[in-house]
Amino acid sequence: MSQPLAIHPHVLLPSSEPARSVAAELYAEIAGAPIVSPHGHVEAALLAEDAPFADPAALLVTPDHYVTRLLHAHGVALDELRPPAEPRSIWRHLCEHWPLLSGTVVRLWLELVLHDVLGARVAPSAATADVLFDELSERLALPEARPRALYERFGIELLTTTDDPADDLRHHRALAADPDWHGRVIPTFRPDAYLDLSRPDWPAQIEHLAAAADMPIDTYDDFVAALERRRGYFAEHGATSSDHGVQTLATERLDEGAARRIFAAALRSRCDRQEAGAFGAHMLDEMARMSCEDGLVMQLHPGVLRDHHGATLHAHGPNAGADIPLRAEFTSALRPLLERYGTHPSFRMVLFTVDETTFSRELAPLAGFYPSVYLGAPWWFLDSPAGMLRFRRAVTDTVGFHRTAGFVDDARALCSIPARHEVARRVDCAFLAELVCEHRLSLAEAATIARDLAHDLPARVFRLGGG
Amino acid sequence: MSQPLAIHPHVLLPSSEPARSVAAELYAEIAGAPIVSPHGHVEAALLAEDAPFADPAALLVTPDHYVTRLLHAHGVALDELRPPAEPRSIWRHLCEHWPLLSGTVVRLWLELVLHDVLGARVAPSAATADVLFDELSERLALPEARPRALYERFGIELLTTTDDPADDLRHHRALAADPDWHGRVIPTFRPDAYLDLSRPDWPAQIEHLAAAADMPIDTYDDFVAALERRRGYFAEHGATSSDHGVQTLATERLDEGAARRIFAAALRSRCDRQEAGAFGAHMLDEMARMSCEDGLVMQLHPGVLRDHHGATLHAHGPNAGADIPLRAEFTSALRPLLERYGTHPSFRMVLFTVDETTFSRELAPLAGFYPSVYLGAPWWFLDSPAGMLRFRRAVTDTVGFHRTAGFVDDARALCSIPARHEVARRVDCAFLAELVCEHRLSLAEAATIARDLAHDLPARVFRLGGG
Amino acid sequence: MSQPLAIHPHVLLPSSEPARSVAAELYAEIAGAPIVSPHGHVEAALLAEDAPFADPAALLVTPDHYVTRLLHAHGVALDELRPPAEPRSIWRHLCEHWPLLSGTVVRLWLELVLHDVLGARVAPSAATADVLFDELSERLALPEARPRALYERFGIELLTTTDDPADDLRHHRALAADPDWHGRVIPTFRPDAYLDLSRPDWPAQIEHLAAAADMPIDTYDDFVAALERRRGYFAEHGATSSDHGVQTLATERLDEGAARRIFAAALRSRCDRQEAGAFGAHMLDEMARMSCEDGLVMQLHPGVLRDHHGATLHAHGPNAGADIPLRAEFTSALRPLLERYGTHPSFRMVLFTVDETTFSRELAPLAGFYPSVYLGAPWWFLDSPAGMLRFRRAVTDTVGFHRTAGFVDDARALCSIPARHEVARRVDCAFLAELVCEHRLSLAEAATIARDLAHDLPARVFRLGGG
Repeated sequence: MSQPLAIHPHVLLPSSEPARSVAAELYAEIAGAPIVSPHGHVEAALLAEDAPFADPAALLVTPDHYVTRLLHAHGVALDELRPPAEPRSIWRHLCEHWPLLSGTVVRLWLELVLHDVLGARVAPSAATADVLFDELSERLALPEARPRALYERFGIELLTTTDDPADDLRHHRALAADPDWHGRVIPTFRPDAYLDLSRPDWPAQIEHLAAAADMPIDTYDDFVAALERRRGYFAEHGATSSDHGVQTLATERLDEGAARRIFAAALRSRCDRQEAGAFGAHMLDEMARMSCEDGLVMQLHPGVLRDHHGATLHAHGPNAGADIPLRAEFTSALRPLLERYGTHPSFRMVLFTVDETTFSRELAPLAGFYPSVYLGAPWWFLDSPAGMLRFRRAVTDTVGFHRTAGFVDDARALCSIPARHEVARRVDCAFLAELVCEHRLSLAEAATIARDLAHDLPARVFRLGGG
Repeated sequence: MSQPLAIHPHVLLPSSEPARSVAAELYAEIAGAPIVSPHGHVEAALLAEDAPFADPAALLVTPDHYVTRLLHAHGVALDELRPPAEPRSIWRHLCEHWPLLSGTVVRLWLELVLHDVLGARVAPSAATADVLFDELSERLALPEARPRALYERFGIELLTTTDDPADDLRHHRALAADPDWHGRVIPTFRPDAYLDLSRPDWPAQIEHLAAAADMPIDTYDDFVAALERRRGYFAEHGATSSDHGVQTLATERLDEGAARRIFAAALRSRCDRQEAGAFGAHMLDEMARMSCEDGLVMQLHPGVLRDHHGATLHAHGPNAGADIPLRAEFTSALRPLLERYGTHPSFRMVLFTVDETTFSRELAPLAGFYPSVYLGAPWWFLDSPAGMLRFRRAVTDTVGFHRTAGFVDDARALCSIPARHEVARRVDCAFLAELVCEHRLSLAEAATIARDLAHDLPARVFRLGGG
Repeated sequence: MSQPLAIHPHVLLPSSEPARSVAAELYAEIAGAPIVSPHGHVEAALLAEDAPFADPAALLVTPDHYVTRLLHAHGVALDELRPPAEPRSIWRHLCEHWPLLSGTVVRLWLELVLHDVLGARVAPSAATADVLFDELSERLALPEARPRALYERFGIELLTTTDDPADDLRHHRALAADPDWHGRVIPTFRPDAYLDLSRPDWPAQIEHLAAAADMPIDTYDDFVAALERRRGYFAEHGATSSDHGVQTLATERLDEGAARRIFAAALRSRCDRQEAGAFGAHMLDEMARMSCEDGLVMQLHPGVLRDHHGATLHAHGPNAGADIPLRAEFTSALRPLLERYGTHPSFRMVLFTVDETTFSRELAPLAGFYPSVYLGAPWWFLDSPAGMLRFRRAVTDTVGFHRTAGFVDDARALCSIPARHEVARRVDCAFLAELVCEHRLSLAEAATIARDLAHDLPARVFRLGGG
């Protein structure tokens, strides 16, 4: 027996009156606001090439580690969730495990995508897997399911990709040059791989960077110059931000001599863990210095132990769903950097965390003093209805709404972008409705803030112009 | 003037409609579900001997460190709460301090026991202490207040004890052999005292273990063999799990040579703190290895500083209510063990914590990738209505319900078992009702999940059969 | 267009029935309870001199780092918020940024002060800044806006200041000797600057202390004697508590020889960081020892990195809004002290934190065992509606209400005292109403507890007499 798939118009809104009606009123006004997505992992090639999606498994399962990790936890080997496994078989794993995903945000996103984007009206289950696979496959072949058509339909105003500094941004250029393309897709400068001397592939990375910057990199000074050049190149192609992920945050500047010496030694042979750490901390300071000069907003998201399970890394590569958060610390770790740039008029940084203990203890107090510091949206495992509510509850009393960057989706799949924004908008309206009903905000103020969070703040904080 | 003691039928359910009605409907369906208790501290002897409880103080105060610690905090010396103090005087301390226990889960459990199990209808107070003492003493002398009668009345399907590996399990055997006994009481293998070389009594413990295993323990290899033998003995007597408490979690494997050397040195003289720590970390790995082979589910609960107050330990021994939680860390500490066994098809571990910061940061992400990892119920200080709600709110968006082990009571007293299950069932129904009213779950799904949490999940996760 | 400024009678109460009505009923009974303020930063001179407040900026902006830090975060330089900037210009900064403070507790406090204390009926904005400035300036010149008149009007029963041990308490004495003064203002002994040997000004501090104690301080024993003498002086002038802020908590006692040696070395030349840390830990133990003897309640609030931004410290001094919290740890750090004094019949300590992760993990368990340990109110960044609710939700199941010290305001400005108490009373009533509506407390019990939290507990815990 198949169950219908339906989305209630009040999903995620408070269950009791009067908060429900207030939230519904607030949400109605912003539900259709254009989407600004200043941080994400959709590839520019997807829109440049505009090829149809192959099948439901290739669209919704295989590339999304949020989904595959949960199926893996429920006993499905990762091998069974990627080619050469049959798409229909991959899809069936998802459908069979559907009841076990109850309560997760992953299921909620999938429901929104299936219902609102793909028009499904039957809930996934062992019984409906094949019918759904056929139905969705047909729909994916239609012109309106192609990436550019979806971009339009989703009301996306701007989409940001995340890119290697050595990337030639050819797909971004192709889009910019395409007279049939009316959207806006900009890159983000993500130099992690170049700043971590302890990576076995670091020397090879430096060669890529030298080639991309079209200059030799024989010294630390060359290295800095090459990074500056590539930041300039990204900015010319529309980038407004850089993005930095580190396992453990540190931002202590080395003196130039030490930086030169460590870099030179690393070029000759792999350097030790401690020197690599010190150099990484130094380079975050350098990135902030460059931000002051070129205006790229510095995004920082520390505290994830990547590839927790070696056998999975070996068999499936990184981003296979085995990254696990660690405790984070910002107050001491960011201090050296903020001592130098925290009140610089053109410096700006957006902080993300997967350790929610820092929300009230460190992040809100930092953003409540430093004009350069903005709080990013709840990230990764916290990008969920309950995580977002806890974020707002933890930081708002201390810093309000306007020291946060509004909603930032970090989506990996084009189709999940509207779903993630819908969830965030609903949850923010639910939170605002609470404040209205507790008489801390007027309805008019709440309506303005709802729009700020959904659209204006990300546009303004990420310097996207026209916001 | 005495106050009535009453339990409202909607206690702990959400206060507003429509969530209250939904929660009440969900709870009505599972209120009478049989109790499965896969982890607890009631002794098998209690049921084997089936002697009547002596008096209300001996039943509800003296043996329960949750109660005595609070009275101690309010100024009652621990000496006044145990023999040779008079039972009536002990009981009076509880009644006189009753108003100061307002809002605590301890008072809620006691209310449920007094009202539902013992039939009291007057609230404890200085004025009612003596009357209640007499009334309850009378009731405890009745046949229906004996342990076996209570076991039946509570609807317990299975009760698990926690036992020393050298225990001969005579009471478990007596129960199994008793034709008049129709319940099920199984042991748990709890080897902490044998794995911690730094304990002054460790050499004596090893002698007990050797005697129990009926083999000499002269070497590390003997030690491992003896543990394996005792695990086998426990499994033969129905055990399905082992249980491990450590102050600081670490799981790094030593090479066999180092393990042998440290063990040999410790047998000759007490070993240093660092080597004892390394050996403990190694032995957790060994326990996981054995779990893969014998199928005992590995329970782990780190992060408690035992016996915080030396004078109390000296005068009253361990478990006197002076254990205080510490920060816990799982992501890095469990990695070596999970690298080895995390995807082993027969390995299974259940993680408990008293540091709720790990719920969303570490535990949910781990259980959302590793098929072997399940989340235990909120433990100890977190085993309370607000703690349970925070647990569900912190982990459900990330891992749903079916990577948790459902409710596990950890009760120290037979009478508190139904109270603890009632609290958990009500709180889980309250949480599920929220999701239903926010349109994230259908009522039918929520009803299934409520039953899973109350009964089916613990039965399945702890491999109890027939669940 | 100007917006009205209004305070809804149900502000901060639960939005849904039946909890709203219950909370309103509870709040109505305690709204007018006298204010006991056992910890704060208003100066005794303010009341001794009773001079009128100069202007709205001098009253509400310049001296309040909660306000200036937020304006700084929104881009206003601190220089523009203090003389020689014009008061009217300072005030305009606040009014222009009013919409950006939406949702913060700072705005809520200001609204309560503006509306209830100063009679404003128009919301601050760029358009209303000048009118409000003139209107408020006029009102501040009236006799009823003088400090003593406000003290009366606010219903303050007792006000506590925070004072340097070398302070001669002349203003406290002046008030005590003033036949026209009927209030009660008592000092608090705050010796941080004398216990931290690493401070550059420590030798100068010791000279002040020697002068105040009227004895030479040449040795550690002199130092201890001088501190004891000053504590006695404070106690004679009404003090009932000492107050201790440290960055990282440690309480390990040195042997007397080591303490003497480190002190002597520090008198000759500045001592190293590690010895200073050890000496600070030792002196906290000494303070606890003295507390056992003289009965001063020991307040402890660790975990803040002061003056995070050096340039701000250099230009504006300490307490400029750039203090940022750090992770805190109590379980291990307090153990040595509690081993010695934790069950001493006259020892009492009140613990504050800005790291809310310690609420359920460490603070509630400690206060649920040690009769000397009380939990202070949510402090600083946590002294807000959401912070208070999280505090009660985190600790109540474990320790109830009566191991907490009730509400303690820590206010920096006389006018904000009633606002802070009103917020706390409303939030506590909201929390109690939840428990009533979930049938965990009767309405009568909740009413008693509401009064305990608002008045009786602070009076009793801080040994203020007559509570």
